[in-house]
Amino acid sequence: MPNLLDKINKANDIKNINPQDYKKLADEIRYFLISNVSKTGGHLASNLGVVELTMALHLFLDLPKDKLIWDVGHQSYTHKILTGRKEGFAKLRQMGGISGFPKRKESECDSFDTGHSSTAISAALGMVKARDLKGENNKIVAVIGDGALTGGLAYEALNNAGRLKSNLIIILNDNKMSISKNVGGMANYLAKLRTNTKYTDFKENMENILTSKLPGGKDIVSRLKRSKDAIKHFMLPNMLFEDMGLTYIGPIDGHNINSILSALNTASRANKAVVIHVITKKGKGYVPAEKHPSKYHGIDPFYINNGKTKGKAKAETYTKVFSSALIKAAEKNEKVVAITAAMPYGTGLHAFKKVFPNRFFDVGIAEEHAVTFAAGLATEGLRPVVAIYSTFLQRSYDQIIHDVCINNLPVVFAIDRAGICGKDGETHQGIFDLSFLSHIPNMVVMAPKNKWELEDMLEFALAYDGPVAIRYPKGEAYQGFAEYREPVILGKSEILSKAEKIAILAVGSMVKTAEAVLEKLKEHDLDATLVNVRFVSPIDYEMIDELSKDHHIFITMEDNVRTGGFGQMVSDYICRNNIQNIRHINFSIPDMFIEHGEVDELFRKYGLDADSISRKILDELENE
Amino acid sequence: MPNLLDKINKANDIKNINPQDYKKLADEIRYFLISNVSKTGGHLASNLGVVELTMALHLFLDLPKDKLIWDVGHQSYTHKILTGRKEGFAKLRQMGGISGFPKRKESECDSFDTGHSSTAISAALGMVKARDLKGENNKIVAVIGDGALTGGLAYEALNNAGRLKSNLIIILNDNKMSISKNVGGMANYLAKLRTNTKYTDFKENMENILTSKLPGGKDIVSRLKRSKDAIKHFMLPNMLFEDMGLTYIGPIDGHNINSILSALNTASRANKAVVIHVITKKGKGYVPAEKHPSKYHGIDPFYINNGKTKGKAKAETYTKVFSSALIKAAEKNEKVVAITAAMPYGTGLHAFKKVFPNRFFDVGIAEEHAVTFAAGLATEGLRPVVAIYSTFLQRSYDQIIHDVCINNLPVVFAIDRAGICGKDGETHQGIFDLSFLSHIPNMVVMAPKNKWELEDMLEFALAYDGPVAIRYPKGEAYQGFAEYREPVILGKSEILSKAEKIAILAVGSMVKTAEAVLEKLKEHDLDATLVNVRFVSPIDYEMIDELSKDHHIFITMEDNVRTGGFGQMVSDYICRNNIQNIRHINFSIPDMFIEHGEVDELFRKYGLDADSISRKILDELENE
Repeated sequence: MPNLLDKINKANDIKNINPQDYKKLADEIRYFLISNVSKTGGHLASNLGVVELTMALHLFLDLPKDKLIWDVGHQSYTHKILTGRKEGFAKLRQMGGISGFPKRKESECDSFDTGHSSTAISAALGMVKARDLKGENNKIVAVIGDGALTGGLAYEALNNAGRLKSNLIIILNDNKMSISKNVGGMANYLAKLRTNTKYTDFKENMENILTSKLPGGKDIVSRLKRSKDAIKHFMLPNMLFEDMGLTYIGPIDGHNINSILSALNTASRANKAVVIHVITKKGKGYVPAEKHPSKYHGIDPFYINNGKTKGKAKAETYTKVFSSALIKAAEKNEKVVAITAAMPYGTGLHAFKKVFPNRFFDVGIAEEHAVTFAAGLATEGLRPVVAIYSTFLQRSYDQIIHDVCINNLPVVFAIDRAGICGKDGETHQGIFDLSFLSHIPNMVVMAPKNKWELEDMLEFALAYDGPVAIRYPKGEAYQGFAEYREPVILGKSEILSKAEKIAILAVGSMVKTAEAVLEKLKEHDLDATLVNVRFVSPIDYEMIDELSKDHHIFITMEDNVRTGGFGQMVSDYICRNNIQNIRHINFSIPDMFIEHGEVDELFRKYGLDADSISRKILDELENE
Repeated sequence: MPNLLDKINKANDIKNINPQDYKKLADEIRYFLISNVSKTGGHLASNLGVVELTMALHLFLDLPKDKLIWDVGHQSYTHKILTGRKEGFAKLRQMGGISGFPKRKESECDSFDTGHSSTAISAALGMVKARDLKGENNKIVAVIGDGALTGGLAYEALNNAGRLKSNLIIILNDNKMSISKNVGGMANYLAKLRTNTKYTDFKENMENILTSKLPGGKDIVSRLKRSKDAIKHFMLPNMLFEDMGLTYIGPIDGHNINSILSALNTASRANKAVVIHVITKKGKGYVPAEKHPSKYHGIDPFYINNGKTKGKAKAETYTKVFSSALIKAAEKNEKVVAITAAMPYGTGLHAFKKVFPNRFFDVGIAEEHAVTFAAGLATEGLRPVVAIYSTFLQRSYDQIIHDVCINNLPVVFAIDRAGICGKDGETHQGIFDLSFLSHIPNMVVMAPKNKWELEDMLEFALAYDGPVAIRYPKGEAYQGFAEYREPVILGKSEILSKAEKIAILAVGSMVKTAEAVLEKLKEHDLDATLVNVRFVSPIDYEMIDELSKDHHIFITMEDNVRTGGFGQMVSDYICRNNIQNIRHINFSIPDMFIEHGEVDELFRKYGLDADSISRKILDELENE
C-alpha cells in the first residue's frame, strides 16, 4: 500500500484519507515522529499520545478558518505534520528549522504561540468573543492537558468560560501527567472521572429502582431530569465542571478517532463552553516512552531499538550540583524545605524528595502558589527553597514582590535555565530574570561562576535573613577557577585576576566566557582585571570605585537582556557618581526575543561568545 | 452600661466579654468604624460586613499563637480594634499612622502582609505545613472573599489544599461582591449554594421516599451514605469543593456569632482543609454603605448623617479622561473592546460598559486571564484595551511577555494608579511598571504629561500594530501645557521649552513637577530645556544626541524606582555612546517599598517634589 503520509501535504489533506486507513495513518505518523525525534531530539511522549486526537481534530475542523489552540504547544508535532510541515522535521528545533512549538509566523494554522502552560482557554475565549462580535461562526477548540489544569490561569479562564453563551470546545487531554505525575485535588477528581463506572452503575441503579420499584417512580425520574441542576448532580460524575457552568462530555478514549469525532460533533451543537474529557496514553506506541513518559517528555537524540540516548555521558550539570548541595544543606538544617512547580526532575528536586519526602512539595504547575506558599512557610521559621526555571518564574513576579519581598521573608529562589537555554526558543529562554528581580526591594540576586560557588551561594542564601535568588544556566557546571573560593559576603564581588586599565566584570556563567576572552586579549599583549560579579543586587559598588582608580575601560558581561540588566546598573553608577574617563562596554543579550537553536550558536549569533566579545573589545580599543 | 470597647485593649480581651453583650459590642465596633472612617476615609463597607465574623474568630482563636490570614486585608479593621490598635484609627492610612492592611511590623497578631487578592490560602497552607513539620498544633484560619476566589492563585491553593491531611480552616466570606459585583462560573455556583433550600428539600424528599416508601429503602440510604463520594454528591450541594477534596460547611449566617463559632468548632476537628461558607452583607449596619457597597468600598471622609463625601468636588481625573476618550475611540472604531479585572469603577470602564455592553468584559479578579484573553481577541483583529492598576498588572508580567509580546499583538494596556498612589501603602504603589515593562521586547511604553496627551496617546496606541502600555497616575489630570499637542509619533519626545546647558527630561506626570522646577530655577537666573519624554520605550535617543550638543547637565525625572527605570536607560545610552562631559542627575523613587501616606507627603519625603528637586539641582550646580 502506498505511503499515506505522502498524500498529506497541507491542511485538510487528511480529509481525503479513507476512514479505514486512519489506523495505518496513525501508525505512519508515530513512525515518523519516533524516527525524526530519535535523530533531532525533541518532545516525544506527549506527541505520541495525541496522534489520534490530532487527526480527529483535523478531520473535524477546517483550518485555518477554524482555530485550534494547543496549550503549552510541545504536543503540536502531529498538527505540524498535518499542516504541510513534514520536511521541517529534519531541522526540528534547530537554528533556522521549525520550532517545537506552535508559531504564528510558521503557519497560519498555528493560531496562537504557546510554550508556557495553562494559556489556551484564555486565548480561545478571546477568539470566541472576537468571532461572536464579528458575527462569524467558525469553530474554536482549545486543547489543554490535565497537568495544565493545576495552573490558576486555566481556572480563571474556566471561570469565565462558565458564563459563555456561544460555542467553545475545550479538549481536556488527560494523560495523568504534567511533565511528571500530576498532583492535587483536581488530579484526584479527574482520576475519579476516569474510573466512573461506579457512578454509572449508581445512576442506573437509582434510575431503575425509582422507575421500576417505586409507585410513581417514573414521574419522579422525569421530574428530576427536568430539574436540571439537581438531576445532573445526581446522575453524573461531572459536577465540578457543570457547577462552574460548563458542559462535560466524557471520558472518551483518546485513541479512538470515531469516539472523539462523535464527541466533537455533539459538543459543537452547544451554545456554551463544552469540556470533552479525552483519556490518552503519554508515549503511546513506543514502549520505552510508554514506560518512562517523563524521560521521553523532552529527549535528546536516541537509538530507536533500545531507547537509549546517543552521545557521551553528560558532565555534571548545575541542576545536579544544586540538587546535591540542597540535600547536604537539609541534612544540616532541618528547617530547609523544597518546593517545585511540577518539575521535580528538571530542577533536580526528585533526589531531595527521596531523602526528605515530608519536606518536599510539588504544588503542580502553579508557580504563583509555589511562591506565596513558600512565603507562608518562611513566616513560621522554615527555610523554603523554590526551584523554578527562569522563564516560569516570570509567572510569580507579583508574588515575589507582594508576598516575599514586602514581607521581607527568607525564601531562596533556585533559578535554573537562566540565560539562553536553546532549543525551546522564545518562550523558554531565561533572559529577563536579572531585569525583573533586580529592581525589587529587599531581593538579593546572585549568579555563581562555577559548581563550587553554587554550593557556597546556596549556603549563604540559607543563612541570610531575607529573599535571595540564585540563577544558573542549563547544562554543564563549570569546573574552572576551582581554587577561587572566597567566602560569599553580601554584596561583595571576587577578583579573579588583577591588571590595570581594562576591567572585565562578568556575571555568573559569563565568567567562563570572560576567562576565554582574557586568553584572547593576551594574544594581543593585553591584560585585564577579571571580576566575578557574584551579586547583581546589591552590586559591589566599592569594587567599582576601587577599579575606577586604575582602570578606564569597564567591560560588563551578562546573559540577560540589556535593559534593566547588570551592565545598565553599572552605567548608572558611573553616571550617578560622575566618574570621569571611564569607557564602559556592555555585553548583554539584545532587547529582543531569542529564537530556538543550539545554545552555543545563539551566543555566537548575538555576539556573546569569546570570539565575538574579544573582537569587539579590540575594535573598540583601536578606535580609541 | 459602660463602653464595652474600653475593656478591649489587646488580643484575647474579647474573651472577657459576656456573650449576652456580643451584640452590643458589635454595635460599638460599627459605630467606631463609621465614626473613624468618616473622618479619615478608608475601607468601610467590607469592614462593616465582617464585624461578627471577626469577633467569632477572635473568640475561637488564641492570637498570636494561632494564625489568622486576611486575604486582601482591607477588611482587617475590626481585627485591628480587637488587637490593641484602637488609638491608631485617628491616623488610619496617614503617614506615620496605622496601615489600612495587615502589617507584620504593626502587630504580631498580623501573620501575613496582604493587599493584593487571592494570596491567603497559599500563605496559610505554608503555615500549616510549617506547623506540622514542627510538630505544633496551633490553629490556622484564612479568610477569603468570594471575589478573591475568581483569582487563579486562590484556585492553585485550593487544589493543593484538597490533598491536605491536617487541619486548615478557610472562611469563604461571601458577600456576592469583589469590589464590584462578582462574576463568573464560580460566582454563579456560590449563588446556588446560598439559596440551597431547594437542594435541602430534594435531599430530604429523596431520603424520605427511599426510606419510607421503598421496600428495603432504609438499607439503600445507609448503603449510599457509606458510599462516600456518591452520597455526598447526592445529598449535598457542595460538590465543587468536595470534588476538589475539601470539606464544605455552610452556608452560615455571617452575622450570627454562635453559628460561626459552632461551624469553627466543627471544622477544627477535621484532619483536612475545611471551607466554611459564611454569608455576610457588605456595609452592614450603615444604610448608605448597604445600599452602595461599591461606593463605600474605599471612601474619602464623609458626613455620617447623609453619607456624602466631604471636601470640594474633584477635578477631572486621568481615569475619567481615559474613560471618555475610550468611548470616543470605540464610537469611531467598532473593533475597540475593553477589559477590566473586577474594577469597572476604578478604571472608569463602567461608562464604557453602559455604551458598549457587548464590547466590555469584566473577567473578575483575574489579571492573568485578562491579558491572555486580550491576546486572543487581538489575534482575531480586535483592538482590546486592558485597563488595570499598575500594581495589579504585576500579576500579568508573564502573560504580557508570553502571550502578548512574543505574539507581538496589538493589545493596549491602560495603566491607572501608576507611580506613588498614597494611602494604601506598600502593596498598592505603582512604582515598578516602567522597570518591568521597558525590558520586554516589542512593548511600547508611554506616559502622558496632561489630559489631552492621554487622549492622543490612546489614539496612537489604538492605531499601532503591536503592544502599547500607557501609564498615568491616580488623581487629577494635569491641564497645563494645553497648547502643546504635537502629534504622537513612535519613539519621539516633545520639547516644551528650549534653553542651553541644562536639560530636564521628565516622564508623564513629572512634567508638571518639572514645570515648577523650571520656575524655581528661573528665580536663580537659570534656564533649562524641558523635554516631555512621552516614550520610555523606545526612548528618543536622537533627542538625547541633539541635546548633548549644547547641554552638559541632563536631569531625568520619573515616578518609578531607579533600577530599571527611565533614568538608568539614559545613563546607559550616555555610557554606550561614550558621550563625554555630560552630568546626569537622576530623580526617581529610591529602590524601596513606599509606605502609606498622602501622595504629596510621600513625594516630599522621597525628594521628588519641585522644592526638593530644585534644591538638589542648585546644590549640584554649586559643587561643579
